[in-house]
Amino acid sequence: MDEFSRIETFFAPLAAEAGLNLKDDAAVLAPPPGRELVFTVDQMLEAVHFFSDDDPALIARKLLRRNLSDLAAMGAVPLGYLLTTALPKRVDEAWLEAFAKGLGQDQAEFGIGLLGGDSSSACTDIALSATLIGHVAPGQALQRSGARAGDGIFVTGTIGDAVLGLEVRRGKLADPTGFLRRRSELPAPRVGLALAGIVNAAIDISDGLVQDLGHLCRAAGLQATINAQQVPASAEAAALGDAVLEQRLTGGDDYELLLAVAPENEAALRAACGAVPVTRIGSFQPGEGVVVLGADGEPMALSGAGWKHF
Amino acid sequence: MDEFSRIETFFAPLAAEAGLNLKDDAAVLAPPPGRELVFTVDQMLEAVHFFSDDDPALIARKLLRRNLSDLAAMGAVPLGYLLTTALPKRVDEAWLEAFAKGLGQDQAEFGIGLLGGDSSSACTDIALSATLIGHVAPGQALQRSGARAGDGIFVTGTIGDAVLGLEVRRGKLADPTGFLRRRSELPAPRVGLALAGIVNAAIDISDGLVQDLGHLCRAAGLQATINAQQVPASAEAAALGDAVLEQRLTGGDDYELLLAVAPENEAALRAACGAVPVTRIGSFQPGEGVVVLGADGEPMALSGAGWKHF
Repeated sequence: MDEFSRIETFFAPLAAEAGLNLKDDAAVLAPPPGRELVFTVDQMLEAVHFFSDDDPALIARKLLRRNLSDLAAMGAVPLGYLLTTALPKRVDEAWLEAFAKGLGQDQAEFGIGLLGGDSSSACTDIALSATLIGHVAPGQALQRSGARAGDGIFVTGTIGDAVLGLEVRRGKLADPTGFLRRRSELPAPRVGLALAGIVNAAIDISDGLVQDLGHLCRAAGLQATINAQQVPASAEAAALGDAVLEQRLTGGDDYELLLAVAPENEAALRAACGAVPVTRIGSFQPGEGVVVLGADGEPMALSGAGWKHF
Repeated sequence: MDEFSRIETFFAPLAAEAGLNLKDDAAVLAPPPGRELVFTVDQMLEAVHFFSDDDPALIARKLLRRNLSDLAAMGAVPLGYLLTTALPKRVDEAWLEAFAKGLGQDQAEFGIGLLGGDSSSACTDIALSATLIGHVAPGQALQRSGARAGDGIFVTGTIGDAVLGLEVRRGKLADPTGFLRRRSELPAPRVGLALAGIVNAAIDISDGLVQDLGHLCRAAGLQATINAQQVPASAEAAALGDAVLEQRLTGGDDYELLLAVAPENEAALRAACGAVPVTRIGSFQPGEGVVVLGADGEPMALSGAGWKHF
């Protein structure tokens, strides 16, 4: 199957109207009137971001979801995406079919369409990227830089499941329910929360809680103090106890949101998050760096500087 | 140097205003009022699209220019781009510095800025991609599908230099002036021509003249007949004679424009192209497929089906 047949068979059926059936040199999109556009791109590379024998549908969905999470961190509504695939010869039609099916599944789930792409052969490893396009009301994009002293630090969902799921996949942890593995393979980006006007700063947790909190601190010229015991754990992670606490605090790939919120907006935050759990884990103050207090109230010494690819 | 230092040192200085200094999760762009947006993405992979010891600045510039050519084929004005880099450990700071310098040079030449990106480690080969964003007046994007029977077939510039330049780089052809090699390493995308309302269909020649003309034929349900002797050759290609004719007709990577133009618009086309050479090489008629007439007026049998990556 050559490049053109692959596009025709597997990717053209996924095309949004603006994608011109992937038959032209580029996509043409009328931007939603009166909105600003938000752009982000992320890669997934074999043996860096996924294992060679991973389910292609899950690879596809995680590729989209990592990018959707970046849009969520900007408060943007997803619109569509462009895709690149670089595939070595060993990648067969069954792989492509499953990969395209995964894309289609998450296109439906998140209301996005394929706008264009580039398909190439590769020598050794599979390389994938997706450029996601979203939109926000003018001036309403959430940014990393707006935290203020006194703001509370909040996270959505539970923290540290994905890094534990990776340990499960490496055979180093048991995972009777499959929950941890699932959290590593199929993150749930927090798109669709109406956080504009409520949060002062936002980032998605991709590099690890401590490292991403460090990004918020540097962007605002502030110090963050969090209480490790307040960092929400899933039942499955909690069952593993304090032995995995440091991993949970520094491991990446959770794709939850990390938010700076003024005390007077906490109620509005909880209302805006609705059914999505949101937990206060600390606050910002003058200074620099991230301080993590342990159960004894003393700062913990964390060896993991953040997410390293496997 | 870690990922963050690389971004800070080499890529942040290239950021457009909408790129937020590459310090956020995504770029935020107010689209030009009353314009449609055009999106395209292309990859450059080591050992597929470039050689390992190629000048990183030229790799960077060709990456942008291949995409700029897709925008040119849509009649779009370039605005900005997102970049992905996947780099194995052996890629050093000197490589990155030269690569970033090449990006900066073409950003200035084409009036575009860096909006965002993703930087990753890679196991084996360098993988690069750029997503280019441009804009057009509503409904004015050129497309592949508009050719009509009777339309003339036109190309900009000269055809076949890039594939010969590749042969030069493989040591199979002499290139005393370095012109052919340069055409392969640094294409000149035909951005900025005001072709809306003048051409019925457009594509850029990336896969090879015959193959890309086939795309226009299929999109319009027409046959194309071109005269091989009318396909414009550079002085350097002409000096190599008919021995390289077939290669020139089927080799890719020229990034010239291939246009369908009604006879009554030929003068307007020439005016719009200004100093850019444009040559009539044949016409469309009812039927299907691409017919290439040789010097004897008989159809040539071409063995090369189009551009194959090296």
